[in-house]
Amino acid sequence: MSLRDEAAELDERDPLARKRAEFDLDPDVSYLDGNSLGAPPRGVAGRLAEVVGKQWAGRLIRSWDEGWWDAPERIGDRIAPLVGAAPGQVVVGDSTTVNLFKAVVAAVRLNPGRPEILLDAGTFPTDGYIAESAARLTGHEVRRVPVPAMPSAVGSRTAVALVNHVNYVTGELHDLPGITAALHSAGALAVWDLCHSVGALPVRLDAAGVDLAVGCTYKFLNGGPGSPAFLYVARKWLNAFDQPLTGWAGHADPFGMTAGYSGGAGISRGRTGTPDILSMLALDAALDVWLDVTIDEVRTKGLALGDFFLRCLDELVPGARVCTPRDHQRGNQISVAWPEGEAAMAALISRGVIGDFRPPDVLRFGLAALYVRYADALRAVEQLRALRQAPTVHSGQ
Amino acid sequence: MSLRDEAAELDERDPLARKRAEFDLDPDVSYLDGNSLGAPPRGVAGRLAEVVGKQWAGRLIRSWDEGWWDAPERIGDRIAPLVGAAPGQVVVGDSTTVNLFKAVVAAVRLNPGRPEILLDAGTFPTDGYIAESAARLTGHEVRRVPVPAMPSAVGSRTAVALVNHVNYVTGELHDLPGITAALHSAGALAVWDLCHSVGALPVRLDAAGVDLAVGCTYKFLNGGPGSPAFLYVARKWLNAFDQPLTGWAGHADPFGMTAGYSGGAGISRGRTGTPDILSMLALDAALDVWLDVTIDEVRTKGLALGDFFLRCLDELVPGARVCTPRDHQRGNQISVAWPEGEAAMAALISRGVIGDFRPPDVLRFGLAALYVRYADALRAVEQLRALRQAPTVHSGQ
Repeated sequence: MSLRDEAAELDERDPLARKRAEFDLDPDVSYLDGNSLGAPPRGVAGRLAEVVGKQWAGRLIRSWDEGWWDAPERIGDRIAPLVGAAPGQVVVGDSTTVNLFKAVVAAVRLNPGRPEILLDAGTFPTDGYIAESAARLTGHEVRRVPVPAMPSAVGSRTAVALVNHVNYVTGELHDLPGITAALHSAGALAVWDLCHSVGALPVRLDAAGVDLAVGCTYKFLNGGPGSPAFLYVARKWLNAFDQPLTGWAGHADPFGMTAGYSGGAGISRGRTGTPDILSMLALDAALDVWLDVTIDEVRTKGLALGDFFLRCLDELVPGARVCTPRDHQRGNQISVAWPEGEAAMAALISRGVIGDFRPPDVLRFGLAALYVRYADALRAVEQLRALRQAPTVHSGQ
Repeated sequence: MSLRDEAAELDERDPLARKRAEFDLDPDVSYLDGNSLGAPPRGVAGRLAEVVGKQWAGRLIRSWDEGWWDAPERIGDRIAPLVGAAPGQVVVGDSTTVNLFKAVVAAVRLNPGRPEILLDAGTFPTDGYIAESAARLTGHEVRRVPVPAMPSAVGSRTAVALVNHVNYVTGELHDLPGITAALHSAGALAVWDLCHSVGALPVRLDAAGVDLAVGCTYKFLNGGPGSPAFLYVARKWLNAFDQPLTGWAGHADPFGMTAGYSGGAGISRGRTGTPDILSMLALDAALDVWLDVTIDEVRTKGLALGDFFLRCLDELVPGARVCTPRDHQRGNQISVAWPEGEAAMAALISRGVIGDFRPPDVLRFGLAALYVRYADALRAVEQLRALRQAPTVHSGQ
């Protein structure tokens, strides 16, 4: 069977194929960058119109009491099952960067007397910048360690380790339960960055005993460009969680307007300033696509898409330098090192295959299982082959 | 002439009366809470539909290069004239709370060797919480001082003072140029919170030599519930501005993905994480209402509305305890202390007059000059009179 016939048959049999219609996607485009910016669920536009026209215009400040004020916790509880968290431990708001700052500072306060922050050596840059900034403010030092070496690197000096669940360049999936257990056995806390795993694969925070976690909602959760991030605080730490962005919206009695700060009950103390309602309720609408699918179904298809992508590569672009683990220790992307990668990606995009480029030379192809088809994976590889055959054909500027 | 006739005549002659049609407002409601949440400009809903349907759905990640990435600085430059700032000193993003944290930490770093942060004793709570948190992290102490006493309180120990331009409870307007000069003469920096002045009255940051400032866009700028705040960094400090929320989006080379943090050129280093585009572009649309009005026109009408409100009060509710300065040393609200104020405000709202309540006993009436009518001011006072005459009639529970 040709790869084209095979792709057609896989798409035909795909139990998630129906979900693609819930997204507003250009039919001419193969969108393989949902690991950077998820595609828009069709429900978002209508929800925003309702939030502006009915809630903001129609009810004005009264809407704060009619669903707005509690949105960060309510939407957090919608994300919770996707990360294996019981209710009351996830709150939505602020950017990933800002939540990382809350998490790292809070973590070192939870584990005093230990001067070191371990940092995933392959981390997305913002985590490192924030770890360094938090360390500067709290008198800690940051030590960068490859994730697989963390169990041997962690020690009695380690307050906390900040680890990416999935490496954003290679797509490698790290062993969250194993690393967490190793950190705990040395008395260190585990803060996980779930940006590239939430919505792509099952994350089991409660089961692994993770202490704190942060994640992004604009990748595989399709919340929209720059949509609010989320913060997870394990139940065991909720009462002690002592974060530095002590805004009025996280106060125990926000409308009491008292002079001294006292963090709210439970996960509410992870809030900072006034919740950003338009973006937050866009995310709320985007989460509706999860109502009739499980993360296990999504994971199954995501891995199958990746396997098919790799097989297409082997057949059509033999010798391509794949950076992503071929076994299933990967997230939901296939990364390929490619000469002149940035220009190559521009050429692919001009041909209707949208992925992205990351330095130094990596092409990333995200495989968001809710809307990516096997035919999209094949098309991407076919275009890679065409590029290899005519490498100087760049995009139409 | 009766007050009703007078209100009708003032509205008839109001050169800003035409602007009300640009807002989506319930005709049955007198909305006097624009100091808490501005009313929706009609252009916002359409812009959001375009951003979701054309930019996000239509262009996907390509939109980052087609206007999204630079939106924080571009929209900051749209706000700049309203706060008396030359271009390149204002950036939009994050909440007010988060920007206060950036500003206070950066300010103490700009002025080392001075252990004290002076804090406006009447500040909105979040500023105090953040000042305390920043002080805890940087080894400073916070001293609360009434704003008029700041010139005598500031001294060689003072690194920075954090001051509200307008008191959120009373509406008192503080002397921004005078206080700033007094702080500077003692070698201290001035950080101003403009939440209750931006969009209500002219603010002249550059002229006064203000060092840093933070402001809110969901009050008199009508950006929507929880819309992104803004940060001002005076040109003289741009190169030295060293803020703690070192996110990838504020990096000099954000897509270089380098391990070490290096703040971007100019005001870009005030950025943190990925810009929240939906809310940011809603704000961008909301700012269009300023295209054909000046802040001076808005201020003129705002003061006239306040004067009329006070005259109505004197006539209809004699002896009402007005908390707001009767001279023009005020922002854009009239505050009235009222027994059982919280229940009173609920009753007013049930009668179609929306203001708000702040502890311990203050009714606030905001006078957003772009859409509030003199008739709205009169109606509010008439309802206050009715409440006084029948104080036990609460809202329709």
